[in-house]
Amino acid sequence: MKNKKYSVILGNLGNTCDRFLSSGYKDPLDKDVMIAQAASIEGVTGIELVGTWDIDESNVAEMKRKLADKNLQCSSIIPDLFARKKWGKGSLAAPAAAIRQDAIAELKALTDMAVELHCDLLNLWPGQDGYDYPLAADYLEERQWLIDGVREVAKYAQAKGVKIALEYKMKEPRTHSYLARACDTLLIAQATGLDNVGITIDTGHAFLAYENVGEVVALLKMHGDRLFHMHFNDNYTSWDDDMIVGSIHLVDYFEMLYWLEKTDFAGWYSIDEYPYREDGYRSIRSSVLFLQRMHALLAKSGMAAVEKLIRLRDPVATTEFIRENLVAHA
Amino acid sequence: MKNKKYSVILGNLGNTCDRFLSSGYKDPLDKDVMIAQAASIEGVTGIELVGTWDIDESNVAEMKRKLADKNLQCSSIIPDLFARKKWGKGSLAAPAAAIRQDAIAELKALTDMAVELHCDLLNLWPGQDGYDYPLAADYLEERQWLIDGVREVAKYAQAKGVKIALEYKMKEPRTHSYLARACDTLLIAQATGLDNVGITIDTGHAFLAYENVGEVVALLKMHGDRLFHMHFNDNYTSWDDDMIVGSIHLVDYFEMLYWLEKTDFAGWYSIDEYPYREDGYRSIRSSVLFLQRMHALLAKSGMAAVEKLIRLRDPVATTEFIRENLVAHA
Amino acid sequence: MKNKKYSVILGNLGNTCDRFLSSGYKDPLDKDVMIAQAASIEGVTGIELVGTWDIDESNVAEMKRKLADKNLQCSSIIPDLFARKKWGKGSLAAPAAAIRQDAIAELKALTDMAVELHCDLLNLWPGQDGYDYPLAADYLEERQWLIDGVREVAKYAQAKGVKIALEYKMKEPRTHSYLARACDTLLIAQATGLDNVGITIDTGHAFLAYENVGEVVALLKMHGDRLFHMHFNDNYTSWDDDMIVGSIHLVDYFEMLYWLEKTDFAGWYSIDEYPYREDGYRSIRSSVLFLQRMHALLAKSGMAAVEKLIRLRDPVATTEFIRENLVAHA
Amino acid sequence: MKNKKYSVILGNLGNTCDRFLSSGYKDPLDKDVMIAQAASIEGVTGIELVGTWDIDESNVAEMKRKLADKNLQCSSIIPDLFARKKWGKGSLAAPAAAIRQDAIAELKALTDMAVELHCDLLNLWPGQDGYDYPLAADYLEERQWLIDGVREVAKYAQAKGVKIALEYKMKEPRTHSYLARACDTLLIAQATGLDNVGITIDTGHAFLAYENVGEVVALLKMHGDRLFHMHFNDNYTSWDDDMIVGSIHLVDYFEMLYWLEKTDFAGWYSIDEYPYREDGYRSIRSSVLFLQRMHALLAKSGMAAVEKLIRLRDPVATTEFIRENLVAHA
Repeated sequence: MKNKKYSVILGNLGNTCDRFLSSGYKDPLDKDVMIAQAASIEGVTGIELVGTWDIDESNVAEMKRKLADKNLQCSSIIPDLFARKKWGKGSLAAPAAAIRQDAIAELKALTDMAVELHCDLLNLWPGQDGYDYPLAADYLEERQWLIDGVREVAKYAQAKGVKIALEYKMKEPRTHSYLARACDTLLIAQATGLDNVGITIDTGHAFLAYENVGEVVALLKMHGDRLFHMHFNDNYTSWDDDMIVGSIHLVDYFEMLYWLEKTDFAGWYSIDEYPYREDGYRSIRSSVLFLQRMHALLAKSGMAAVEKLIRLRDPVATTEFIRENLVAHA
Repeated sequence: MKNKKYSVILGNLGNTCDRFLSSGYKDPLDKDVMIAQAASIEGVTGIELVGTWDIDESNVAEMKRKLADKNLQCSSIIPDLFARKKWGKGSLAAPAAAIRQDAIAELKALTDMAVELHCDLLNLWPGQDGYDYPLAADYLEERQWLIDGVREVAKYAQAKGVKIALEYKMKEPRTHSYLARACDTLLIAQATGLDNVGITIDTGHAFLAYENVGEVVALLKMHGDRLFHMHFNDNYTSWDDDMIVGSIHLVDYFEMLYWLEKTDFAGWYSIDEYPYREDGYRSIRSSVLFLQRMHALLAKSGMAAVEKLIRLRDPVATTEFIRENLVAHA
Repeated sequence: MKNKKYSVILGNLGNTCDRFLSSGYKDPLDKDVMIAQAASIEGVTGIELVGTWDIDESNVAEMKRKLADKNLQCSSIIPDLFARKKWGKGSLAAPAAAIRQDAIAELKALTDMAVELHCDLLNLWPGQDGYDYPLAADYLEERQWLIDGVREVAKYAQAKGVKIALEYKMKEPRTHSYLARACDTLLIAQATGLDNVGITIDTGHAFLAYENVGEVVALLKMHGDRLFHMHFNDNYTSWDDDMIVGSIHLVDYFEMLYWLEKTDFAGWYSIDEYPYREDGYRSIRSSVLFLQRMHALLAKSGMAAVEKLIRLRDPVATTEFIRENLVAHA
Repeated sequence: MKNKKYSVILGNLGNTCDRFLSSGYKDPLDKDVMIAQAASIEGVTGIELVGTWDIDESNVAEMKRKLADKNLQCSSIIPDLFARKKWGKGSLAAPAAAIRQDAIAELKALTDMAVELHCDLLNLWPGQDGYDYPLAADYLEERQWLIDGVREVAKYAQAKGVKIALEYKMKEPRTHSYLARACDTLLIAQATGLDNVGITIDTGHAFLAYENVGEVVALLKMHGDRLFHMHFNDNYTSWDDDMIVGSIHLVDYFEMLYWLEKTDFAGWYSIDEYPYREDGYRSIRSSVLFLQRMHALLAKSGMAAVEKLIRLRDPVATTEFIRENLVAHA
């Protein structure tokens, strides 16, 4: 197994809020401190930056220098299509044409910033594009706007060597997102007719949708090889709790790492959590360490042994394997 | 609005069991009685037959005559890929090649029976094709078997003028089905390279997967116009309860009928419930009557008015519409 | 049927935010405007005030006058145990004793304000009391703190003629709340040994927990007659979406109103929604109108007819009743 | 830590069916073979027998001898209140008085058989007592019937030294069970006024209801010390999948064993799975071995260390503990 590239989302190290405590559970942290913290986590060499929050035209050069100082790469830019009032009713699929144009313009600008930062990936999560109620949206029209917007941005990005990874999530902040599950999102990627459009799997988003991540990885390989990026976190499977990796699930992570390896995934293994009440640095680091442990256990078992196991198609053999190889011995 | 074609699944009128009461909650009913009951429901002109249970090579001619006697069309044949021990670990994607061949052979034979019955649709629900545990299936290999099997059957059927509608359901009897949601199933239909392969939406399966049926109808129109068939029932949204249509939801049904009309769906509106403890005939009939009421309310409102409403994208206007047009006045 | 008392939560008329758009989707609204809006909704005579947001020691007299000017009663005070950083890890069950004391002191102060406002109900939702991860809380110790805190406040309130209604919700903002479902909350009410401690049902919280509100109403009647207050909203049953009443469900509302009447519920029918992207006033009003419609339909059917229906225990008869009495005729 | 008593449900070793494959996925197994298999699982000393399926008046003496031959105790009798047509609409809360009387009579008879088998526990799961649709049940009347029935049986059993453990499950076979969650079931136990009525936690039923088993154990201790029995299995948290213990979850099991020990649970640790497509013996054994591993890991960590950890209330420390003590090292 080749070395893996680990990354974190910068903002996860800072303050986090929810709808009840809008000022956040913690105090804001200085950006430099957060960058230093990210750099100090064992094995982490990449950082994801969120538009507006972390990066805009005014600070690209400065941010570039800061990352270089810490030997960090910018693993992706996550455009802010969700955190400003103007996106409240949508961004790329907003009812207002002017908002859609704004979104496209901003994504092009961020593409340029990505190039400047030697980053080849825009991670698009258009969380406000969707709807909340039945009988209150024109699904055909809005979906077409979304496709058209992604296509225009992707065309621009393609010329600059930048890929667009569409991150799906079934719901929140809307009760229904247009990029909801792996395969409806893949259909949108395909509909652009461009091969620099692919998918980001967020493990928690997949759990929430009752998707098995290992299966989704295989499926995205099969239908066009479009898995571009991975976000890791854990949850109780009915909401995007954004918890520390490995706090709830075990076997699922092992299985998905197998399939990522099996399908030659060469992208970043990036942590995306929301440590509302926890220390950001220690919390993110704990996720990284769990992921690295799973990679180490996979290497120890060996790909061939796991392949042999899954070909048995025998759940009892699987649970024996779990007890033998994944769970601690007393 | 054109006249709609209503249909029922024959077996729904009979006895139904579950894992605790395997002998069923009711007594078996004579097939002729069931056919007569189906025919007597206002507006019902079609009937779906389940392979093995209702139809096999030995009784095709007889069944054809019985349906003709009651002026019923065979709206679809639902091959039995789930109710015999040999399918226990899968049918089209079973680990054993011989089982996969059996499934294909049986589907071809049922295609011939469909032709004989002047029925142009096979409704394929390969419920045993999937997996129960993580780390106990080879998703790539099994998904490929499934595609290959569907393609072989569809090719055969195409020559005979028969369409294959793939019915998806996220889980049960497996914890994970390969045909799980609308879009992963659409990808399989596309992968066959044949345009006589499409999708069946079962409304309860969609609810279970947190899909909005109206949106799915629009989406299937957009990505290849592959919606072939509709199964109606209701549930509490977290399991395939197979309840009487309209016992829980209201607005969702109205919305989906709008989108079916809007996208020129010309197939059957077929009831698929499991009236475990209820009288089969009265229960199925109640579903039909609810569906017809929704169609009548849609006709009364008019397509243009609903289109205008959804273009407002104003949930408050939507709830005013609901109170004005869908809920009874005191 | 006696006249019903309708109420709204003042803050629902204003701006609302979530974790992604912490500044809120709309602009803040002047408190006087909101009060005037509430008063202008047909049939609304009560208003719920949230501590800190709407009411504190400095403005009680002023608020009292404002409500009087509009002929509004204060139907309840909802103490803020969730919207300040100090409650981030809990209030009545916080690990820090000083925080628990703060919470108790604040609740006593709000009891005094309630008395001043001629309001006899504190609606307690200790949303931060719970936990997020397994193996990270002492359930016995924290639950005892919660009981002790509620008891101390309730004793104080009892002497002043004020009731304490505990509002439960399975999760959010924590992944697990201590007041999670109707019956675990009832056990806490009972454990205080005081009969001025009861329960608030929020319909959306109940849906989220797969509770049937009608059954919960009956159950709370049976086990001590402790239903004190009702919050109404709608959702998709897997999250507290806080939507307009009647946008998704129909029959459930009708059934719960029957059981509230049957069990002689004499409290407020209060709306509690989060109109993130909708106009607050129109949205809340739409909920009130739906609820009033359901009451009117119940009155029209008559309690005796509904009782006769449920005694039939025949779901088919129920769906016939729905079509006849709850759904519009074409 | 004292030695633990492990048990299995006899029928789990045999054939299992579902609503689609009513003949079952496997072949029936001889009862003697199943008993021998149970006895051969390391550490298993108890066996649960299901009424009708395993035990009735005609074979008590024979079964007693068979268990004695294998040094097995009867850990509980699970009355069949779910697997015969007559219970289809309920047992203890059935609409028909004669059915309710039948259920009570049968439970008394099984109490006598339990005494004969030196078994002190009836595990009551009245799975058919509940309802499927809104507006189709009288919750007050049916709940009272249930309480009255349990009281009558429990009074009879008390005189014979037999305890009644009520097993709850939110749904299935009904969409709503009357014994749905831990606390509503506890209220019923309390309402009998008898202290030989308690609760069975089935871990999968708790997961399905979004209950944290560790918390439920603590809560049942606190509110009357009524936890009598434990059933173990695993699932994907949205249905009672009845899978092998430890195939999905890890930390939850460790935590619940801590709380069981902490609250001096002295009952049986019994496996309750449905190995539809798996070899029964190997599958059940795998669950037992996982549970024993968790017990061994708890003993190795020590109760004091875990108590210290949970008192930290620091999820990051918890995940460090998980990596250090529960997950395998590479």
